[in-house]
Amino acid sequence: MKPSFPEYLQSAQQRVNNALVQLSQQRQSEFSEHADASLDATLYEAMAYCLLNGGKRVRATLVYASAEAVNNNCSVEALDYIAASLECLHAYSLVHDDLPAMDDDDLRRGQPTCHKAYDEATAILTGDALQCLAFELLADCPGLEAQQRIALVKTLAAAAGTRGMVGGQFIDLRMERHTPALELLEAIHSLKTGALIRAAITMGAIAAGANSEQLQALDRYGQTIGLAFQVKDDLLDIEGSTEILGKQQGSDISNSKMTYPSLLGLDGTRDKLQQLLEHAQQSLQSFGNDAMQLQQLAGYIVSRDH
Amino acid sequence: MKPSFPEYLQSAQQRVNNALVQLSQQRQSEFSEHADASLDATLYEAMAYCLLNGGKRVRATLVYASAEAVNNNCSVEALDYIAASLECLHAYSLVHDDLPAMDDDDLRRGQPTCHKAYDEATAILTGDALQCLAFELLADCPGLEAQQRIALVKTLAAAAGTRGMVGGQFIDLRMERHTPALELLEAIHSLKTGALIRAAITMGAIAAGANSEQLQALDRYGQTIGLAFQVKDDLLDIEGSTEILGKQQGSDISNSKMTYPSLLGLDGTRDKLQQLLEHAQQSLQSFGNDAMQLQQLAGYIVSRDH
Repeated sequence: MKPSFPEYLQSAQQRVNNALVQLSQQRQSEFSEHADASLDATLYEAMAYCLLNGGKRVRATLVYASAEAVNNNCSVEALDYIAASLECLHAYSLVHDDLPAMDDDDLRRGQPTCHKAYDEATAILTGDALQCLAFELLADCPGLEAQQRIALVKTLAAAAGTRGMVGGQFIDLRMERHTPALELLEAIHSLKTGALIRAAITMGAIAAGANSEQLQALDRYGQTIGLAFQVKDDLLDIEGSTEILGKQQGSDISNSKMTYPSLLGLDGTRDKLQQLLEHAQQSLQSFGNDAMQLQQLAGYIVSRDH
Repeated sequence: MKPSFPEYLQSAQQRVNNALVQLSQQRQSEFSEHADASLDATLYEAMAYCLLNGGKRVRATLVYASAEAVNNNCSVEALDYIAASLECLHAYSLVHDDLPAMDDDDLRRGQPTCHKAYDEATAILTGDALQCLAFELLADCPGLEAQQRIALVKTLAAAAGTRGMVGGQFIDLRMERHTPALELLEAIHSLKTGALIRAAITMGAIAAGANSEQLQALDRYGQTIGLAFQVKDDLLDIEGSTEILGKQQGSDISNSKMTYPSLLGLDGTRDKLQQLLEHAQQSLQSFGNDAMQLQQLAGYIVSRDH
């Protein structure tokens, strides 16, 4: 019997958290052979602080659920490496995003951000190290062909760089004082948040040996839920309470950031979210019951309260 | 007839500069299909500003010269991608190193540093994008087996992360107000500067299909010249003029950074450099005349005036 979605989510969260602890400890012990271990312990501590702060693990869960939809057996250990890689990449982007020169945030999930808990230099280097580790984990991915591992590196690099996440962050920063049209808003989100979510789905499918038809259908799903994820974030910024969100509620408004509610109104934004959910579910039809967890994940993304 | 070393160096510099221009323009034109091209032009401009500011291209030249020492024919285009990847990685590390929260430098090779020419947020994102591009170029490397490309990604990631460059920078930052023993100084430099220089040599050799004996000999050479490079940098900080160096002469002393001259004295430091040069040349004996450019490169590293 398939696990219920809350059970599935919890087991994915546990798997990736364990992988993150193990893989970074392995690397720390290798390092310690080279230099005085006490000197670099803080760097590893800061990485662990940013990696293990109670994130929702949406990207990791998408990796497992996407591989499951393809339903070719592949090593679960390989999926752990891929899930860990995506969470490293995501964590690095949050650490750098929070820096004073960027969004200047003091809180992240209710805890002091990395540069507050440590200092700015440590936060810059922690982010840099996490990005590097993300690529290292893909190259080390056990149980996959070299050709698959290269496809994983390419997919992550394309999603994380100028044509993806970093490009989106850059445009977003420059736009903060303007109100863009809906089309541009969607383009920015599809780069900034959507690219990595799509990559997570594609990477799980690559590990499971998906064919090009399957990859295309999953990418349609990924595009849709990537957008839904951001629309929901904008809604939560208005609807959610500071206590649950772990960040200042309404902070997007006070920074005069462009959001969906400011362009479509609250009701229009809720309608949009519902349309996206239906579209996501349609994209998965050809996978039948194997895509059950991906179906539920889409529902989770639009109904979450933080 | 083999080219003289100055000719060889110049042609390596030209090759990698051309590759950097072409490869980043390719990526910019792909990006422009997705969003308003004018919005991200500044990010690409900042990347080009940091990549093409007259660097010595030691790492790129080591890639070409190392492949030549192995003397198995391999695609020169593959070497261009590898050389460009290393220069992207090196450029990212300089951009982040120069940030106010890190070394807080205003000048780099006589020009305003990235955060001075643009702003801090742009400099953070430019460095992030350059690291990502470095890994993307290796995954895209033409004319090599997937297995070789994976070996390249692994080598770069190991050299760039916590067990290499970032780890070294982190310890270096924490040490600035102390004077460490010689042993620790060497450990820091071998991580901070040496790891990437060794990686450049190994990566050229991987592309050329080197066997494990050749890789070992080249790595001994790499370890030695990596250290020589840093010792020479410390000497130049005292001996060089600000005009030639393009940065404040004596800035290491005024920051009370630990240096070889402060530990060994000027004469002791010059002796050390000579020993390293001889050791590097011995490591190359088995390659005979094929390692001529690597031999000359070692000489160039210890005799350069900037």
